[in-house]
Amino acid sequence: MKILITSGGTTEKIDSVRGITNHSTGTLGKYIAEAFLAGGYEVTLVTTKAAVKPEAHKKMTIHLVSDVASLMGTLRPLVKTHDVLIHSMAVSDYTPVYMTDLDEVEDSSNIAQLLTKKNSAAKISSKSDYQVLFLKKTPKIISLVKEWNPTIQLIGFKLLVSVPKEELFAVARDSLIKNHAKFILANDLTEITPTQHHAYLLTETKSYEAWTKADIAQLIYEKVTTDD
Amino acid sequence: MKILITSGGTTEKIDSVRGITNHSTGTLGKYIAEAFLAGGYEVTLVTTKAAVKPEAHKKMTIHLVSDVASLMGTLRPLVKTHDVLIHSMAVSDYTPVYMTDLDEVEDSSNIAQLLTKKNSAAKISSKSDYQVLFLKKTPKIISLVKEWNPTIQLIGFKLLVSVPKEELFAVARDSLIKNHAKFILANDLTEITPTQHHAYLLTETKSYEAWTKADIAQLIYEKVTTDD
Repeated sequence: MKILITSGGTTEKIDSVRGITNHSTGTLGKYIAEAFLAGGYEVTLVTTKAAVKPEAHKKMTIHLVSDVASLMGTLRPLVKTHDVLIHSMAVSDYTPVYMTDLDEVEDSSNIAQLLTKKNSAAKISSKSDYQVLFLKKTPKIISLVKEWNPTIQLIGFKLLVSVPKEELFAVARDSLIKNHAKFILANDLTEITPTQHHAYLLTETKSYEAWTKADIAQLIYEKVTTDD
Repeated sequence: MKILITSGGTTEKIDSVRGITNHSTGTLGKYIAEAFLAGGYEVTLVTTKAAVKPEAHKKMTIHLVSDVASLMGTLRPLVKTHDVLIHSMAVSDYTPVYMTDLDEVEDSSNIAQLLTKKNSAAKISSKSDYQVLFLKKTPKIISLVKEWNPTIQLIGFKLLVSVPKEELFAVARDSLIKNHAKFILANDLTEITPTQHHAYLLTETKSYEAWTKADIAQLIYEKVTTDD
Protein backbone atom coordinates (compact mmCIF):
# COMPACT_ATOMS: atom_id res chain seq x y z
CA MET A 1 0.00 0.00 0.00
CA LYS A 2 1.55 3.30 -1.16
CA ILE A 3 0.69 6.42 0.83
CA LEU A 4 0.48 9.90 -0.71
CA ILE A 5 0.39 12.84 1.72
CA THR A 6 0.08 16.59 1.04
CA SER A 7 1.14 19.18 3.62
CA GLY A 8 1.94 22.89 4.04
CA GLY A 9 0.11 25.75 2.35
CA THR A 10 0.11 27.00 -1.24
CA THR A 11 0.97 30.56 -2.32
CA GLU A 12 -0.62 32.24 -5.36
CA LYS A 13 1.56 34.94 -6.91
CA ILE A 14 0.29 38.52 -7.15
CA ASP A 15 3.50 39.63 -8.88
CA SER A 16 7.14 38.59 -8.76
CA VAL A 17 7.61 39.67 -5.13
CA ARG A 18 4.16 39.28 -3.49
CA GLY A 19 1.77 36.38 -3.07
CA ILE A 20 -1.35 35.26 -1.21
CA THR A 21 -0.41 32.48 1.18
CA ASN A 22 -2.50 29.95 3.04
CA HIS A 23 -0.81 29.61 6.38
CA SER A 24 0.14 26.08 7.31
CA THR A 25 3.39 25.01 8.88
CA GLY A 26 3.15 21.44 7.57
CA THR A 27 3.59 20.02 11.07
CA LEU A 28 0.50 17.80 11.02
CA GLY A 29 1.47 16.36 7.62
CA LYS A 30 4.95 15.66 9.00
CA TYR A 31 3.48 13.67 11.91
CA ILE A 32 1.24 11.72 9.55
CA ALA A 33 4.16 10.90 7.22
CA GLU A 34 6.24 9.77 10.20
CA ALA A 35 3.44 7.49 11.44
CA PHE A 36 3.28 5.66 8.09
CA LEU A 37 7.09 5.50 7.75
CA ALA A 38 7.28 4.01 11.25
CA GLY A 39 4.74 1.40 10.11
CA GLY A 40 7.00 0.42 7.22
CA TYR A 41 4.93 2.01 4.44
CA GLU A 42 6.25 3.78 1.36
CA VAL A 43 5.37 7.49 1.59
CA THR A 44 5.25 10.21 -1.07
CA LEU A 45 5.03 13.70 0.44
CA VAL A 46 3.86 16.64 -1.67
CA THR A 47 4.68 19.83 0.20
CA THR A 48 6.15 23.34 -0.04
CA LYS A 49 9.64 24.73 0.37
CA ALA A 50 8.61 26.54 3.56
CA ALA A 51 6.84 23.59 5.21
CA VAL A 52 8.29 21.53 8.06
CA LYS A 53 9.31 18.09 6.76
CA PRO A 54 10.26 14.69 8.25
CA GLU A 55 13.95 13.81 8.21
CA ALA A 56 15.15 12.10 5.05
CA HIS A 57 14.03 8.45 4.93
CA LYS A 58 14.76 5.77 2.33
CA LYS A 59 11.04 4.98 1.99
CA MET A 60 10.01 8.64 1.53
CA THR A 61 10.01 10.72 -1.66
CA ILE A 62 9.35 14.50 -1.46
CA HIS A 63 7.87 16.64 -4.25
CA LEU A 64 7.87 20.44 -3.80
CA VAL A 65 5.02 22.56 -5.14
CA SER A 66 4.22 26.28 -4.77
CA ASP A 67 0.76 27.14 -6.10
CA VAL A 68 -2.45 25.34 -7.09
CA ALA A 69 -1.30 24.91 -10.69
CA SER A 70 1.93 23.18 -9.66
CA LEU A 71 0.07 21.11 -7.05
CA MET A 72 -2.38 19.97 -9.72
CA GLY A 73 0.40 19.02 -12.15
CA THR A 74 2.34 17.14 -9.48
CA LEU A 75 -0.57 15.40 -7.80
CA ARG A 76 -2.44 14.10 -10.83
CA PRO A 77 0.06 11.39 -11.88
CA LEU A 78 0.83 10.53 -8.23
CA VAL A 79 -2.84 9.95 -7.38
CA LYS A 80 -2.93 7.32 -10.15
CA THR A 81 -0.03 5.35 -8.66
CA HIS A 82 -0.93 5.47 -4.95
CA ASP A 83 -3.50 3.64 -2.82
CA VAL A 84 -4.20 6.34 -0.24
CA LEU A 85 -4.23 10.15 -0.41
CA ILE A 86 -4.13 12.10 2.87
CA HIS A 87 -4.72 15.64 1.67
CA SER A 88 -3.77 17.86 4.62
CA MET A 89 -2.40 20.75 2.53
CA ALA A 90 -4.02 24.17 2.90
CA VAL A 91 -4.81 24.91 -0.75
CA SER A 92 -5.51 28.45 -1.98
CA ASP A 93 -9.20 28.99 -2.83
CA TYR A 94 -8.52 32.02 -5.02
CA THR A 95 -5.75 33.16 -7.33
CA PRO A 96 -4.99 36.77 -8.37
CA VAL A 97 -6.12 37.83 -11.83
CA TYR A 98 -5.59 41.60 -11.95
CA MET A 99 -4.54 44.35 -9.56
CA THR A 100 -5.27 48.00 -10.17
CA ASP A 101 -5.86 51.30 -8.38
CA LEU A 102 -9.25 52.50 -7.14
CA ASP A 103 -9.60 55.02 -9.99
CA GLU A 104 -9.72 52.34 -12.68
CA VAL A 105 -12.42 50.45 -10.78
CA GLU A 106 -14.47 53.60 -10.12
CA ASP A 107 -14.16 54.69 -13.76
CA SER A 108 -15.05 51.28 -15.16
CA SER A 109 -18.55 50.92 -16.59
CA ASN A 110 -18.16 47.13 -16.66
CA ILE A 111 -16.34 45.82 -13.62
CA ALA A 112 -16.49 42.17 -14.73
CA GLN A 113 -14.42 43.18 -17.74
CA LEU A 114 -11.50 44.03 -15.42
CA LEU A 115 -11.25 40.28 -14.85
CA THR A 116 -10.06 39.90 -18.43
CA LYS A 117 -7.11 42.27 -17.89
CA LYS A 118 -3.58 41.33 -16.88
CA ASN A 119 -0.88 43.31 -15.09
CA SER A 120 1.95 44.17 -17.42
CA ALA A 121 4.62 45.05 -14.85
CA ALA A 122 6.67 42.39 -13.12
CA LYS A 123 6.29 44.30 -9.85
CA ILE A 124 3.06 46.21 -9.41
CA SER A 125 3.55 49.91 -8.63
CA SER A 126 2.97 51.00 -5.05
CA LYS A 127 2.15 54.66 -5.64
CA SER A 128 -1.65 54.72 -5.19
CA ASP A 129 -3.26 55.01 -1.76
CA TYR A 130 -5.52 52.06 -2.53
CA GLN A 131 -5.33 48.97 -4.69
CA VAL A 132 -8.04 46.57 -5.79
CA LEU A 133 -7.13 42.94 -6.38
CA PHE A 134 -9.46 40.75 -8.46
CA LEU A 135 -9.26 37.04 -7.75
CA LYS A 136 -10.84 33.97 -9.30
CA LYS A 137 -11.63 30.59 -7.78
CA THR A 138 -8.99 27.90 -8.21
CA PRO A 139 -9.99 24.37 -9.32
CA LYS A 140 -11.06 22.23 -6.34
CA ILE A 141 -8.37 19.55 -6.47
CA ILE A 142 -10.03 17.34 -3.87
CA SER A 143 -13.07 16.98 -6.15
CA LEU A 144 -10.85 15.60 -8.96
CA VAL A 145 -9.03 12.93 -6.97
CA LYS A 146 -11.61 10.15 -7.46
CA GLU A 147 -11.88 10.98 -11.17
CA TRP A 148 -8.11 10.47 -11.47
CA ASN A 149 -8.19 7.24 -9.46
CA PRO A 150 -11.60 5.82 -8.44
CA THR A 151 -10.08 3.21 -6.11
CA ILE A 152 -7.82 5.50 -4.06
CA GLN A 153 -8.72 5.91 -0.37
CA LEU A 154 -9.19 9.66 0.10
CA ILE A 155 -8.81 11.39 3.46
CA GLY A 156 -9.79 15.07 3.23
CA PHE A 157 -9.34 17.93 5.70
CA LYS A 158 -11.79 20.67 6.65
CA LEU A 159 -10.61 23.63 8.72
CA LEU A 160 -13.22 26.11 9.89
CA VAL A 161 -12.86 29.01 12.30
CA SER A 162 -14.96 29.51 15.42
CA VAL A 163 -18.08 27.54 14.45
CA PRO A 164 -20.35 25.26 16.57
CA LYS A 165 -19.45 21.56 16.48
CA GLU A 166 -22.71 20.79 14.63
CA GLU A 167 -21.76 23.16 11.80
CA LEU A 168 -18.22 21.78 11.62
CA PHE A 169 -19.59 18.23 11.34
CA ALA A 170 -22.21 19.21 8.75
CA VAL A 171 -19.72 21.05 6.51
CA ALA A 172 -17.14 18.24 6.84
CA ARG A 173 -19.69 15.51 6.02
CA ASP A 174 -20.92 17.51 3.06
CA SER A 175 -17.31 17.51 1.78
CA LEU A 176 -17.00 13.78 2.55
CA ILE A 177 -20.03 12.91 0.41
CA LYS A 178 -19.31 15.37 -2.41
CA ASN A 179 -15.68 14.29 -2.81
CA HIS A 180 -16.25 10.56 -2.15
CA ALA A 181 -13.77 10.63 0.72
CA LYS A 182 -13.38 7.75 3.16
CA PHE A 183 -12.77 10.16 6.05
CA ILE A 184 -12.69 13.90 6.64
CA LEU A 185 -10.51 15.31 9.40
CA ALA A 186 -12.61 18.18 10.77
CA ASN A 187 -10.98 20.85 12.92
CA ASP A 188 -11.52 24.42 14.11
CA LEU A 189 -8.66 26.94 14.17
CA THR A 190 -9.70 28.18 17.61
CA GLU A 191 -9.06 24.66 18.98
CA ILE A 192 -5.46 24.59 17.73
CA THR A 193 -2.75 25.92 20.05
CA PRO A 194 1.00 25.22 20.25
CA THR A 195 0.26 22.30 22.62
CA GLN A 196 -3.19 21.13 21.47
CA HIS A 197 -4.83 20.18 18.17
CA HIS A 198 -8.43 19.17 18.71
CA ALA A 199 -9.94 17.36 15.72
CA TYR A 200 -12.55 14.80 14.66
CA LEU A 201 -12.02 12.08 12.07
CA LEU A 202 -15.45 11.64 10.49
CA THR A 203 -17.25 9.13 8.30
CA GLU A 204 -20.89 9.64 7.36
CA THR A 205 -22.03 8.05 10.60
CA LYS A 206 -19.02 7.79 12.91
CA SER A 207 -16.67 10.24 14.61
CA TYR A 208 -13.31 9.71 16.32
CA GLU A 209 -11.80 12.46 18.46
CA ALA A 210 -8.15 13.43 18.92
CA TRP A 211 -6.46 16.14 20.96
CA THR A 212 -2.90 16.46 19.64
CA LYS A 213 -1.17 16.32 16.25
CA ALA A 214 0.50 13.04 17.26
CA ASP A 215 -2.91 11.59 18.20
CA ILE A 216 -4.43 12.73 14.91
CA ALA A 217 -1.58 11.10 12.96
CA GLN A 218 -1.98 7.87 14.93
CA LEU A 219 -5.76 7.85 14.45
CA ILE A 220 -5.46 8.33 10.68
CA TYR A 221 -2.75 5.65 10.54
CA GLU A 222 -4.96 3.14 12.37
CA LYS A 223 -8.10 3.84 10.36
CA VAL A 224 -6.26 3.67 7.02
CA THR A 225 -4.30 0.49 7.80
CA THR A 226 -7.12 -1.44 9.52
CA ASP A 227 -10.07 -2.92 7.67
CA ASP A 228 -13.24 -2.02 9.56
CA MET B 1 28.18 51.32 17.86
CA LYS B 2 24.92 49.30 18.05
CA ILE B 3 23.67 47.76 14.83
CA LEU B 4 19.96 47.25 14.07
CA ILE B 5 19.12 44.98 11.12
CA THR B 6 15.74 44.02 9.64
CA SER B 7 15.31 40.92 7.45
CA GLY B 8 12.69 38.60 5.98
CA GLY B 9 9.31 39.67 4.58
CA THR B 10 6.12 40.83 6.31
CA THR B 11 2.68 39.22 5.88
CA GLU B 12 -0.58 41.19 6.05
CA LYS B 13 -3.58 39.11 7.12
CA ILE B 14 -6.60 38.77 4.84
CA ASP B 15 -8.39 36.61 7.39
CA SER B 16 -7.37 34.08 10.03
CA VAL B 17 -5.96 31.60 7.50
CA ARG B 18 -4.78 33.71 4.53
CA GLY B 19 -2.33 36.57 4.13
CA ILE B 20 -0.44 38.62 1.55
CA THR B 21 3.26 37.89 1.90
CA ASN B 22 6.31 39.71 0.60
CA HIS B 23 8.70 36.94 -0.33
CA SER B 24 12.11 37.18 1.30
CA THR B 25 14.04 34.32 2.81
CA GLY B 26 16.04 36.60 5.14
CA THR B 27 19.32 35.17 3.84
CA LEU B 28 20.92 38.54 2.99
CA GLY B 29 20.00 39.95 6.42
CA LYS B 30 21.55 36.85 7.99
CA TYR B 31 24.84 37.45 6.15
CA ILE B 32 24.84 41.12 7.19
CA ALA B 33 24.18 40.25 10.84
CA GLU B 34 27.00 37.66 10.75
CA ALA B 35 29.44 40.21 9.27
CA PHE B 36 28.83 42.66 12.15
CA LEU B 37 28.90 39.89 14.80
CA ALA B 38 32.23 38.70 13.38
CA GLY B 39 33.47 42.30 13.72
CA GLY B 40 32.58 42.28 17.42
CA TYR B 41 29.54 44.55 17.18
CA GLU B 42 26.31 44.23 19.14
CA VAL B 43 23.48 43.31 16.73
CA THR B 44 19.70 43.54 17.10
CA LEU B 45 17.85 41.59 14.41
CA VAL B 46 14.19 42.31 13.68
CA THR B 47 12.86 39.48 11.52
CA THR B 48 10.00 37.03 10.96
CA LYS B 49 9.30 33.52 12.23
CA ALA B 50 9.79 32.10 8.71
CA ALA B 51 13.07 33.93 7.92
CA VAL B 52 16.49 32.28 7.96
CA LYS B 53 18.45 33.50 11.00
CA PRO B 54 22.07 33.42 12.20
CA GLU B 55 22.91 30.89 14.91
CA ALA B 56 22.36 32.14 18.46
CA HIS B 57 25.14 34.56 19.51
CA LYS B 58 25.70 36.29 22.85
CA LYS B 59 25.95 39.68 21.15
CA MET B 60 22.74 39.23 19.12
CA THR B 61 19.12 39.88 20.19
CA ILE B 62 16.25 38.78 17.93
CA HIS B 63 12.78 40.37 17.79
CA LEU B 64 10.05 38.61 15.75
CA VAL B 65 7.44 40.61 13.86
CA SER B 66 4.69 39.55 11.43
CA ASP B 67 3.04 42.54 9.73
CA VAL B 68 3.73 46.25 9.21
CA ALA B 69 1.91 47.22 12.41
CA SER B 70 4.05 44.90 14.56
CA LEU B 71 7.20 45.98 12.69
CA MET B 72 6.38 49.61 13.42
CA GLY B 73 5.74 48.95 17.11
CA THR B 74 8.95 46.95 17.48
CA LEU B 75 11.23 49.17 15.39
CA ARG B 76 10.32 52.58 16.78
CA PRO B 77 11.92 52.20 20.25
CA LEU B 78 14.87 50.23 18.80
CA VAL B 79 15.69 52.96 16.24
CA LYS B 80 16.06 55.40 19.15
CA THR B 81 18.66 53.22 20.91
CA HIS B 82 20.80 52.14 17.94
CA ASP B 83 23.45 53.90 15.84
CA VAL B 84 22.88 52.14 12.52
CA LEU B 85 19.75 50.70 10.86
CA ILE B 86 20.23 48.29 7.94
CA HIS B 87 16.67 47.88 6.70
CA SER B 88 16.76 44.85 4.40
CA MET B 89 13.26 43.59 5.24
CA ALA B 90 10.72 43.30 2.41
CA VAL B 91 7.86 45.31 3.92
CA SER B 92 4.29 45.01 2.63
CA ASP B 93 3.18 48.09 0.66
CA TYR B 94 -0.52 47.35 1.08
CA THR B 95 -2.72 45.78 3.72
CA PRO B 96 -6.17 44.21 3.18
CA VAL B 97 -9.19 46.28 4.19
CA TYR B 98 -12.22 44.40 2.83
CA MET B 99 -12.86 41.33 0.68
CA THR B 100 -16.16 40.72 -1.06
CA ASP B 101 -17.66 39.02 -4.10
CA LEU B 102 -18.00 40.61 -7.52
CA ASP B 103 -21.74 41.21 -7.09
CA GLU B 104 -21.31 43.62 -4.21
CA VAL B 105 -18.75 45.62 -6.20
CA GLU B 106 -20.93 45.67 -9.33
CA ASP B 107 -24.01 46.68 -7.33
CA SER B 108 -22.22 49.41 -5.42
CA SER B 109 -22.96 52.98 -6.49
CA ASN B 110 -20.00 54.24 -4.46
CA ILE B 111 -17.01 51.93 -4.65
CA ALA B 112 -14.82 54.04 -2.35
CA GLN B 113 -17.38 53.40 0.38
CA LEU B 114 -16.51 49.69 0.30
CA LEU B 115 -13.19 50.73 1.83
CA THR B 116 -15.04 51.63 5.02
CA LYS B 117 -16.45 48.08 5.39
CA LYS B 118 -14.94 45.21 7.33
CA ASN B 119 -15.30 41.46 6.95
CA SER B 120 -17.28 39.95 9.78
CA ALA B 121 -16.28 36.31 9.39
CA ALA B 122 -13.02 34.94 10.77
CA LYS B 123 -12.55 32.95 7.56
CA ILE B 124 -13.93 34.53 4.41
CA SER B 125 -16.33 32.28 2.48
CA SER B 126 -15.01 30.64 -0.67
CA LYS B 127 -18.30 30.09 -2.50
CA SER B 128 -18.23 32.83 -5.16
CA ASP B 129 -16.40 32.39 -8.44
CA TYR B 130 -14.65 35.72 -7.99
CA GLN B 131 -13.54 37.83 -5.05
CA VAL B 132 -12.44 41.43 -4.90
CA LEU B 133 -9.92 42.47 -2.28
CA PHE B 134 -9.57 46.14 -1.36
CA LEU B 135 -6.19 47.17 0.04
CA LYS B 136 -4.79 50.39 1.47
CA LYS B 137 -1.23 51.65 1.58
CA THR B 138 0.76 50.88 4.71
CA PRO B 139 2.82 53.61 6.43
CA LYS B 140 6.29 53.92 4.86
CA ILE B 141 8.44 52.97 7.83
CA ILE B 142 11.72 53.96 6.17
CA SER B 143 10.46 57.55 5.91
CA LEU B 144 9.92 57.69 9.70
CA VAL B 145 13.34 56.42 10.78
CA LYS B 146 15.13 59.78 10.78
CA GLU B 147 12.17 61.39 12.59
CA TRP B 148 12.55 58.81 15.34
CA ASN B 149 16.34 59.22 15.53
CA PRO B 150 17.93 62.01 13.42
CA THR B 151 21.48 60.78 14.07
CA ILE B 152 21.03 57.12 13.10
CA GLN B 153 22.93 55.93 10.01
CA LEU B 154 20.23 54.55 7.70
CA ILE B 155 20.95 51.97 5.00
CA GLY B 156 17.86 51.37 2.86
CA PHE B 157 17.14 48.71 0.23
CA LYS B 158 15.44 49.06 -3.14
CA LEU B 159 14.43 45.98 -5.11
CA LEU B 160 13.07 46.48 -8.61
CA VAL B 161 12.28 43.88 -11.26
CA SER B 162 13.71 43.87 -14.76
CA VAL B 163 14.54 47.57 -15.17
CA PRO B 164 17.53 49.27 -16.86
CA LYS B 165 20.44 50.13 -14.54
CA GLU B 166 19.78 53.86 -15.00
CA GLU B 167 16.23 53.47 -13.72
CA LEU B 168 17.35 51.34 -10.79
CA PHE B 169 19.92 53.99 -9.82
CA ALA B 170 17.45 56.86 -10.24
CA VAL B 171 14.73 55.21 -8.12
CA ALA B 172 17.24 54.15 -5.45
CA ARG B 173 18.81 57.65 -5.23
CA ASP B 174 15.35 59.19 -5.03
CA SER B 175 14.72 56.96 -2.00
CA LEU B 176 18.16 57.88 -0.58
CA ILE B 177 17.40 61.60 -0.68
CA LYS B 178 13.75 61.37 0.42
CA ASN B 179 14.53 59.13 3.40
CA HIS B 180 17.84 60.79 4.35
CA ALA B 181 19.66 57.46 4.03
CA LYS B 182 23.44 57.19 4.05
CA PHE B 183 23.33 54.37 1.48
CA ILE B 184 20.74 52.52 -0.57
CA LEU B 185 21.42 48.95 -1.64
CA ALA B 186 19.90 48.78 -5.12
CA ASN B 187 19.17 45.43 -6.74
CA ASP B 188 17.07 43.85 -9.46
CA LEU B 189 15.24 40.56 -8.88
CA THR B 190 16.33 39.25 -12.30
CA GLU B 191 19.96 39.52 -11.14
CA ILE B 192 19.41 37.32 -8.10
CA THR B 193 19.88 33.55 -8.50
CA PRO B 194 20.73 30.82 -6.00
CA THR B 195 24.46 31.46 -6.60
CA GLN B 196 24.53 35.18 -7.47
CA HIS B 197 23.18 38.40 -5.95
CA HIS B 198 24.18 41.39 -8.04
CA ALA B 199 23.70 44.72 -6.25
CA TYR B 200 24.97 48.30 -6.00
CA LEU B 201 25.54 50.20 -2.78
CA LEU B 202 24.77 53.81 -3.67
CA THR B 203 25.33 57.26 -2.25
CA GLU B 204 24.19 60.36 -4.12
CA THR B 205 27.39 60.38 -6.18
CA LYS B 206 29.15 57.04 -5.66
CA SER B 207 28.35 53.41 -6.42
CA TYR B 208 29.97 50.18 -5.18
CA GLU B 209 29.17 46.88 -6.88
CA ALA B 210 28.83 43.41 -5.36
CA TRP B 211 28.01 40.01 -6.87
CA THR B 212 27.10 37.71 -3.98
CA LYS B 213 25.21 38.00 -0.69
CA ALA B 214 28.48 37.56 1.22
CA ASP B 215 30.07 40.38 -0.82
CA ILE B 216 27.09 42.66 -0.19
CA ALA B 217 27.29 41.98 3.55
CA GLN B 218 31.04 42.69 3.56
CA LEU B 219 30.60 45.89 1.52
CA ILE B 220 27.94 47.22 3.88
CA TYR B 221 30.07 46.25 6.87
CA GLU B 222 33.09 48.14 5.51
CA LYS B 223 31.20 51.27 4.53
CA VAL B 224 29.34 51.46 7.85
CA THR B 225 32.41 50.86 10.02
CA THR B 226 34.88 53.04 8.08
CA ASP B 227 34.78 56.84 8.14
CA ASP B 228 35.13 58.12 4.57
